[in-house]
Amino acid sequence: MALHGEYDPDNIFAKMVKSEIPAIKVYEDDVAMAFMDIFPQSEGHTLVIPKHEEARNLLEMPPEKLGPYMERVQKVAKAVEAALKPDGVTVMQFNGGPAGQTVFHLHFHIIPRWSDRPMSGHGSSGQADPADLEAVAYKIRNAF
Amino acid sequence: MALHGEYDPDNIFAKMVKSEIPAIKVYEDDVAMAFMDIFPQSEGHTLVIPKHEEARNLLEMPPEKLGPYMERVQKVAKAVEAALKPDGVTVMQFNGGPAGQTVFHLHFHIIPRWSDRPMSGHGSSGQADPADLEAVAYKIRNAF
Repeated sequence: MALHGEYDPDNIFAKMVKSEIPAIKVYEDDVAMAFMDIFPQSEGHTLVIPKHEEARNLLEMPPEKLGPYMERVQKVAKAVEAALKPDGVTVMQFNGGPAGQTVFHLHFHIIPRWSDRPMSGHGSSGQADPADLEAVAYKIRNAF
Repeated sequence: MALHGEYDPDNIFAKMVKSEIPAIKVYEDDVAMAFMDIFPQSEGHTLVIPKHEEARNLLEMPPEKLGPYMERVQKVAKAVEAALKPDGVTVMQFNGGPAGQTVFHLHFHIIPRWSDRPMSGHGSSGQADPADLEAVAYKIRNAF
């Protein structure tokens, strides 16, 4: 999918916001929602999306909405860090298919890193066991 | 370097802000400064830093300062996109050495992507020719 184009209101993250499909959530308020990536690149890989903006990517986000959204991204990153005590946290955000984007609703990836474990490619380890994701999500939820 | 620790006021980005060492700048205002990465992972690889915050990483940034800073990150990403017309833009931000961070002053990477060119590893292509960086910077500066 191209860098520019029309927002699809039926993308899977929009459906998660509307509870039309399930998500293993760790945080939600009026501005943003955070949930486990089902193709985690490391233990605790979490996504943070704005809830009510039809922005396909960072370039399309209304500038005045960036502050409240990024405060949630930071808040979730801090909770992930507090819950899992990684050695580092990689934050990534992709704009357009050639950049690695697969769902066209703005999202930041929060990927805990450990010195002794490489980060895997997206999807390269396959879909995670939901029970494992729930166990990690439980820890993160309790760290806010 | 660990995820947590003391801010070093003599890190190379702090020195760039103070003009103690040179930077190939594309944008600067009271809040942020953007300049070319000298170890680019693709043509147009740009870094955006907050100017006056002693934050080693995203976790340490005062939440109320995130909005103004991220507006500059977006503004620079838009200019990079307008100048170079990539097929995508990868945005990355590393917290802690094990996450890939090498300079401990908060910075976002803006990396233009093209469908037919892989993104190289940081530093894997060596230090760029300053004349090449200046040529790209010139295009980006003119796209604001």
